[in-house]
Amino acid sequence: MKNNKDNYISLICVGNELFYNVLNTNVHIASRVCGLNGFDIGLNIIVPDNIKEIVRAVDFCLKNSSVLMISGGLGPTFDDITREAISIYMERKLIFSSCAWEEIQQRFRERKMISIPEKNRKQAMIIEGADFISNSVGTAPGMMVKHNDKLIFLLPGPPWEFEEMLKNSVIPILKKTFLGHSFIRKVFGIAGESEVVVEEKTDEIRDIIKSFGGEWTILAKPHLVELWLKVPYSKKELFNQVENFLKKTFNDSFLGDCSIPEGLASVLKEKKLVCCFAESCTGGLAGHLMTELPGVSQCFNGSIVAYSNRVKRRILRVSRSTLKKYGAVSEQTAIAMAKGARKYGKADVSLAITGIAGPEGGSVEKPVGLVCMAVALSNRQIQTKVFHFTGQRSIIKLRSALAGIDFLRRAIIKDF
Amino acid sequence: MKNNKDNYISLICVGNELFYNVLNTNVHIASRVCGLNGFDIGLNIIVPDNIKEIVRAVDFCLKNSSVLMISGGLGPTFDDITREAISIYMERKLIFSSCAWEEIQQRFRERKMISIPEKNRKQAMIIEGADFISNSVGTAPGMMVKHNDKLIFLLPGPPWEFEEMLKNSVIPILKKTFLGHSFIRKVFGIAGESEVVVEEKTDEIRDIIKSFGGEWTILAKPHLVELWLKVPYSKKELFNQVENFLKKTFNDSFLGDCSIPEGLASVLKEKKLVCCFAESCTGGLAGHLMTELPGVSQCFNGSIVAYSNRVKRRILRVSRSTLKKYGAVSEQTAIAMAKGARKYGKADVSLAITGIAGPEGGSVEKPVGLVCMAVALSNRQIQTKVFHFTGQRSIIKLRSALAGIDFLRRAIIKDF
Repeated sequence: MKNNKDNYISLICVGNELFYNVLNTNVHIASRVCGLNGFDIGLNIIVPDNIKEIVRAVDFCLKNSSVLMISGGLGPTFDDITREAISIYMERKLIFSSCAWEEIQQRFRERKMISIPEKNRKQAMIIEGADFISNSVGTAPGMMVKHNDKLIFLLPGPPWEFEEMLKNSVIPILKKTFLGHSFIRKVFGIAGESEVVVEEKTDEIRDIIKSFGGEWTILAKPHLVELWLKVPYSKKELFNQVENFLKKTFNDSFLGDCSIPEGLASVLKEKKLVCCFAESCTGGLAGHLMTELPGVSQCFNGSIVAYSNRVKRRILRVSRSTLKKYGAVSEQTAIAMAKGARKYGKADVSLAITGIAGPEGGSVEKPVGLVCMAVALSNRQIQTKVFHFTGQRSIIKLRSALAGIDFLRRAIIKDF
Repeated sequence: MKNNKDNYISLICVGNELFYNVLNTNVHIASRVCGLNGFDIGLNIIVPDNIKEIVRAVDFCLKNSSVLMISGGLGPTFDDITREAISIYMERKLIFSSCAWEEIQQRFRERKMISIPEKNRKQAMIIEGADFISNSVGTAPGMMVKHNDKLIFLLPGPPWEFEEMLKNSVIPILKKTFLGHSFIRKVFGIAGESEVVVEEKTDEIRDIIKSFGGEWTILAKPHLVELWLKVPYSKKELFNQVENFLKKTFNDSFLGDCSIPEGLASVLKEKKLVCCFAESCTGGLAGHLMTELPGVSQCFNGSIVAYSNRVKRRILRVSRSTLKKYGAVSEQTAIAMAKGARKYGKADVSLAITGIAGPEGGSVEKPVGLVCMAVALSNRQIQTKVFHFTGQRSIIKLRSALAGIDFLRRAIIKDF
């Protein structure tokens, strides 16, 4: 098998991808940050904290890559061994860096910790000949070292530290080294359509992109299809053509480069509206997704997570008779919840979500995955929607939250 | 470099790790499901939808592994090319499987979709000589194929389908093929302690584990340190010894094999208590984390996400004077929020979280990362705690939610 002729970037995550499974991981951060800056990651490898395996992976990556980033294993404990692995691979010594040590001490002082554990001195050891990279948010300094004609970056494992160092140190070095970038990338989102439908409706424009030497990838995410486009830098005006085509083809489903929560926030801000949610089966996830956006307090008042019927009654003022007659998962209850959220949440518009996330609680008439939603644009202007989702509890919750947020966005665009 | 002598399992994720960054990804699912069943994944590789790269990765993995799992690229669209890549690598034809086609049609009927897109026929193509594996939750069937003395599994990309097939089909085959497992794994969690402290306090027991041929890994997650232990099957009684040691050493910080939300739910259920939250900076995340647990409605009434001061006043009845005198981020406001959540959320106990998640909104006296919490065990039994978190907005939210949930758990254990 011949190697791919392209020089690309590889990423090795040492252990750490398994640590942080609740947030974005370094694989995702790197692909997005590098991709949007015009650099592609061709290969990601995740290896355990094992020197032999790290060395084997480094060797495999450097066969095809001009740049290798390694995240993780720079901490102070016994199983943080990335420094050692690279020093063995490169046959260079580890030396104590007083600059690095000064910075580590500074981080501890900022955290008001007076005594620094002796173990942290290990973090000040850098590979002979490497440049130390400052870490403004954590204790593990990074480093950059040249190996023949290749660049190797050692970066911290915690995703927020990794992202910071990637954006502020690695990307500028890559841009300088490679004298800018030869291609440019953009992501467009289409909400609430299936992958197959998006593919069929975009045949024509995809062929145009490809005829200019560009690439086109479709990623299906919950309630969202993303188109990842890559074109030669000299052809970047193609993006306008694609954007116009997608807008015309998908209308309100077209999100541009926004996520679903960003789409709602942007419509709310544009129309100077404030929203409030009432959530049952999503348990706070819709609110959580909105509040991942900085500055959302301008247009988001909060969410009443009425998981129990008592809270639906006491706070949202859903009547006992509505709950009894139609059940907690019904369009009628969703309407009452949306009205309550709008009124007591002091909002202009509201969204209510009630459903059965499973695995228990389903019945023949109301199976797991049934989710009822209501949107209130005023006390009278109310719309409802019923969904049948499949999958596990967490994916039903996630699809419900995103479909709900998107439902409110569409309703505002159309009727406000 | 000599290869590791162990025969282990490798996982190649084709494209899909980049698709599903909002949920657990296949790398995490596989490491947990396989690990807890006594099988280790030695190597994870993520490659783009590119036949050459897939073949190169397969070749690299099979050098060291007796089992290779490949997830993703079994869908119906043009860039789903895993089948083709493996058929090229193995030099075998792709043939139409009527069993697989029957199953795909069945999935469409269940979703009440009458016409099946022609493109989906592609999903019924399997590698010559492969066994088809039924997919009970999605349209992409899996397959298993022998290559020399190695086993290759082709599995669907969507994490919920991947997990289902892994648990129900792959693990039983692995257990049968390898005649049970030679080691056993367990995970113990310790809440609210630092990685370095946990390492120092467990030196002694770690040495015991290692002397019996076991392995010990420390994973630092937000507000939680996990100890992943692996011992030979014949030495599984060591786990009791470790558990007793950890209980004695870490007291209430020891969570056993529970997550932080599971720890709270279990204490609430044991004491027959119901809780309600009031969240400001976490925006619903604390409620979301609790409601990821099936059956949590027994002990969780809901959460009032009072992102704006208007909702803090209107629903939680925080007084205007408290907000004015102490500010929204203060112990006093947290106390008032906790009281409101307990009363209006009709709960026995409550937790309130208010803080500055950033990046904007900080000041010299109240910097980004300052988070005030209160727990109300009765109208009078109230405790507060102040945290200074670092990191990005989303990590401050996550740490706050987990620290808050853990704070309530400890308070109940100690004082209820």
